[in-house]
Amino acid sequence: MGIVFSDLAVSADGFAAGLNQREEEPFGDVDQSWLTGWMFDAYDENKAEVDAIVESGATIMGRNMFGPVRGEWDRDWRGWWGPNPPYHNAVFVLTHYPQDPIEMEGGTTFHFVTDGIEAALERARAEAGEQGISVAGGAGTVNQFLAAGLLDELRLHITPSIVGAGERVFDGVPPQRLERVSVRATSLVTHITYRPLRP
Amino acid sequence: MGIVFSDLAVSADGFAAGLNQREEEPFGDVDQSWLTGWMFDAYDENKAEVDAIVESGATIMGRNMFGPVRGEWDRDWRGWWGPNPPYHNAVFVLTHYPQDPIEMEGGTTFHFVTDGIEAALERARAEAGEQGISVAGGAGTVNQFLAAGLLDELRLHITPSIVGAGERVFDGVPPQRLERVSVRATSLVTHITYRPLRP
Repeated sequence: MGIVFSDLAVSADGFAAGLNQREEEPFGDVDQSWLTGWMFDAYDENKAEVDAIVESGATIMGRNMFGPVRGEWDRDWRGWWGPNPPYHNAVFVLTHYPQDPIEMEGGTTFHFVTDGIEAALERARAEAGEQGISVAGGAGTVNQFLAAGLLDELRLHITPSIVGAGERVFDGVPPQRLERVSVRATSLVTHITYRPLRP
Repeated sequence: MGIVFSDLAVSADGFAAGLNQREEEPFGDVDQSWLTGWMFDAYDENKAEVDAIVESGATIMGRNMFGPVRGEWDRDWRGWWGPNPPYHNAVFVLTHYPQDPIEMEGGTTFHFVTDGIEAALERARAEAGEQGISVAGGAGTVNQFLAAGLLDELRLHITPSIVGAGERVFDGVPPQRLERVSVRATSLVTHITYRPLRP
């Protein structure tokens, strides 16, 4: 069975997004390049980590990572990623509002799951088979999985910046020790992988 | 002129101490070994970083790092470190309550500064000469120096743990980019040094 993992690009103070995430600013009140510049400006140097983000058999994400629509799905929204999203597998979007699946180019289909993270994980497992499952974000969703003991591996990509407010990794997660699996520093980012230590 | 630096041992979520710091538990409601175990249990491996913490010409610390006494100095308190503290220089303790200096063995003298961080820094500079000045903590004091643009180097020693609440590095510090100067991982801790990027 594949592992359940998350990749989060965060500031030195742990924020994966600023306040006021919205359609024009998916990362809210923060210069997005502070958090994700390393993926684009230094792709060659960070290729292993960038490519690993989408190496999964299925994907789970929070609704706010999928898009800016809140409440009922009252408009046609197909994600931030254009007609051919980078996931190329089944993406389970956590939401309180049911909606029919949306099939995209390249093998990505967005499914909308209204019965919580365990249900989403079960559906993702059925889809992923022996492959890993990516909990793509945002931080709130990753924190839910961490708090529930459902995440096997957290890959933080720590950028040299202070964001100060927004969506923060570890918020609401019970105190615990972690195992630090690996550290790799490149010019723009420090990659640290942790595994929760289950009792 | 020496640099102004801080060393903070923090959890993965940035806490340098838990809630409820008190005489019996200087680090509050957290197992102190989670944050500082690497300094003692793996000293050989982390010798360079541990030794560098006290390589300064003068030291500045917040009152809560100096001790558990709050309000007036209504009891004899000489720090947590016994008769011969590890600083071996002039230590300027930030407080609102004046008190005469306390001379310890080994060259450490605690001075009590009631007129703020700039005044403490000025006195520390006069004492340190060409040597560096250590802002020893806690996190609240380090954050004050960061927010005021008075810190040249922040050395985080990130331990694999989630603490969840307490004194957190970067709280209240304005959003900004940092320069990441160095990263070194040993078995129990990840050392990351940042420099604020002044405009």
